[in-house]
Amino acid sequence: MRRIGVVDTTFSRVDMGSIAVSELRSLGPNLKVIRRTVPGIKDLPVECKLLLEEGCDIVIALGMPGKEALDKVCAHEASTGLIHAQLMTNKHIIEVFVHMDEAPDDRTLAMLARNRTVEHAKSAYLMLFRPEELIRLAGTGQRQGFEDAGPVKGGKSAIHH
Amino acid sequence: MRRIGVVDTTFSRVDMGSIAVSELRSLGPNLKVIRRTVPGIKDLPVECKLLLEEGCDIVIALGMPGKEALDKVCAHEASTGLIHAQLMTNKHIIEVFVHMDEAPDDRTLAMLARNRTVEHAKSAYLMLFRPEELIRLAGTGQRQGFEDAGPVKGGKSAIHH
Amino acid sequence: MRRIGVVDTTFSRVDMGSIAVSELRSLGPNLKVIRRTVPGIKDLPVECKLLLEEGCDIVIALGMPGKEALDKVCAHEASTGLIHAQLMTNKHIIEVFVHMDEAPDDRTLAMLARNRTVEHAKSAYLMLFRPEELIRLAGTGQRQGFEDAGPVKGGKSAIHH
Amino acid sequence: MRRIGVVDTTFSRVDMGSIAVSELRSLGPNLKVIRRTVPGIKDLPVECKLLLEEGCDIVIALGMPGKEALDKVCAHEASTGLIHAQLMTNKHIIEVFVHMDEAPDDRTLAMLARNRTVEHAKSAYLMLFRPEELIRLAGTGQRQGFEDAGPVKGGKSAIHH
Amino acid sequence: MRRIGVVDTTFSRVDMGSIAVSELRSLGPNLKVIRRTVPGIKDLPVECKLLLEEGCDIVIALGMPGKEALDKVCAHEASTGLIHAQLMTNKHIIEVFVHMDEAPDDRTLAMLARNRTVEHAKSAYLMLFRPEELIRLAGTGQRQGFEDAGPVKGGKSAIHH
Repeated sequence: MRRIGVVDTTFSRVDMGSIAVSELRSLGPNLKVIRRTVPGIKDLPVECKLLLEEGCDIVIALGMPGKEALDKVCAHEASTGLIHAQLMTNKHIIEVFVHMDEAPDDRTLAMLARNRTVEHAKSAYLMLFRPEELIRLAGTGQRQGFEDAGPVKGGKSAIHH
Repeated sequence: MRRIGVVDTTFSRVDMGSIAVSELRSLGPNLKVIRRTVPGIKDLPVECKLLLEEGCDIVIALGMPGKEALDKVCAHEASTGLIHAQLMTNKHIIEVFVHMDEAPDDRTLAMLARNRTVEHAKSAYLMLFRPEELIRLAGTGQRQGFEDAGPVKGGKSAIHH
Repeated sequence: MRRIGVVDTTFSRVDMGSIAVSELRSLGPNLKVIRRTVPGIKDLPVECKLLLEEGCDIVIALGMPGKEALDKVCAHEASTGLIHAQLMTNKHIIEVFVHMDEAPDDRTLAMLARNRTVEHAKSAYLMLFRPEELIRLAGTGQRQGFEDAGPVKGGKSAIHH
Repeated sequence: MRRIGVVDTTFSRVDMGSIAVSELRSLGPNLKVIRRTVPGIKDLPVECKLLLEEGCDIVIALGMPGKEALDKVCAHEASTGLIHAQLMTNKHIIEVFVHMDEAPDDRTLAMLARNRTVEHAKSAYLMLFRPEELIRLAGTGQRQGFEDAGPVKGGKSAIHH
Repeated sequence: MRRIGVVDTTFSRVDMGSIAVSELRSLGPNLKVIRRTVPGIKDLPVECKLLLEEGCDIVIALGMPGKEALDKVCAHEASTGLIHAQLMTNKHIIEVFVHMDEAPDDRTLAMLARNRTVEHAKSAYLMLFRPEELIRLAGTGQRQGFEDAGPVKGGKSAIHH
């Protein structure tokens, strides 16, 4: 039984944690999901690290940074901390941040948060159980929450020159 | 008996440390509060780390960065250090920064500093004693010191699509 | 038998991992190549660190950051993490990032990604097997994916003044 | 006998190290002062760390960053390193940076450098010998080298609301 | 016999490594110089750390960042890594970066690279063998590669006020 952690925030305007937990449960019975909530994104790094050290194999870190310049700096600090936490534990943390200025209105924001969370939960699942599937998707321009960018056009001929 | 640390600065124009201590004391008798003051926000990370290693379960780091570009950089450095200190100790530090340009005048600044400190002190209390309460508040757009942003409108239908 | 790791992303729009593996295989039989794919560039640092600790002598980290401001921040965070991972393992990670706005169209982007990957794979090979060759190339303005800048003109006389 | 380190730079245009040493000596006989000089501010972090590990209880790091954008980045890197060094040693480093564009002319720059150094030396002294004095100064808007900002006006009534 | 490391890059358009080695050899027979070359500036931190852990007492890290915004970010990442490497080893790394946009033409760039490298090599020598000489130069506005800024005018009277 593999264990996966889910950490989200009270600052977020969408309950991304519940979306992630629900998606992970639907992916299969071979997963134990452990959920935590912290106030804001800067509280994510140490909480994720704690979960990884308590036995989680991977953690999904969910957050919704605001649209001001200060919020962008917070997101940068949180991301730096999440990478640091991974290097200290030798395990992955999948960062799922939805910036409030990525969507023009509340409804779109909710949809984007939902889609991105679901797709990243699937990625976390693949990383744990089917890493070879990720190799198959290498260089295919995957995007989470938006339409995939896809591989470059004319790329094959350019590459196999 | 859980122990909570409070560290603030002489640079701040509001005595945020006293506000935090007073709020924490009102939250219940099951808390021992330890207070320290340092000159500026860049001195917070190591002081918070010391308190955590001396037995505090959580620390509240209070600061009031100035409005100049240099002050913003200082705040970024301090925040990065606070996250690093958490990763080194496996404990939370709740950062409570009030930027001087967040308020148009002294009186509003004092009110903002007070409200944000009080609300973060409550968060720290919940993190220690009732973490399940934070899960209940996940994704509800909590804000400290300002009115809550609340959850997105129309979010439920978008999410449970 | 030396071991070299290759890690790329599903976010990239070019399968840089396959290009690197193919180039490394053509460079000689004295190399064992181990390939992994992660979702995005922020997932590279810990994956590269894992490969180095599992016995790789060097790792090539391949990514294609987007053109938005947020993407530039992601790339900075990933790069910082890659340098940190090297300092923690005492081994080199060769970062090969192709920014999507470095090329005017898909075809050029594919060509740039291919050329830069191939040239960095050669560098990684030299670092492992012929480090003295790098000393011979010191200060010659080598560029990966674009034409070399070359040494400064008139530099010899200025230097041996 | 407590030990305090002083590290400054040859890049600075004011001999801040001598000012600090002189001030510290005037503060009392119960201090042993150890002085070092490095070329620039990026050399400060490891030198301060060395002093702390050789027995200093606290170190004052003095520097004078230039006015160009590159100099601002250097100062940021140095500050980040100084915070990191503190977290690694569990001791304080008091950073005293005077940016060359903080003063309109040489004479004012010298005065600012002198005043800021003296006031920070006093802070370092308080941190070592009378930390309770810092708590008394919490939230009073202390500034080093300029006039104090003071506590916010009308703050008491707003706070004790 | 003290050991000093020299690491430069193939990206640089001037062979700064040879300049440093030559200058160090001219400074005296009591030095063993070990030279390495890496592809770019982001490869410097771990290579310098390796040299320090293999017995070098100090390392000179030479690089020539490009003029684009991305190059500035690379330089910042490399500098951050170099400071981190120093904190991990408790030894100095003297960073010698010449930004390509510091000089208007190739000839000036070569001259600047040469002068800065030579002067930093002298600093490294002083740090190892005559640290007291650096204290004598404290606050004198030393610059490497350009004319010294010198101490502030009227500074003495302002300082000894």
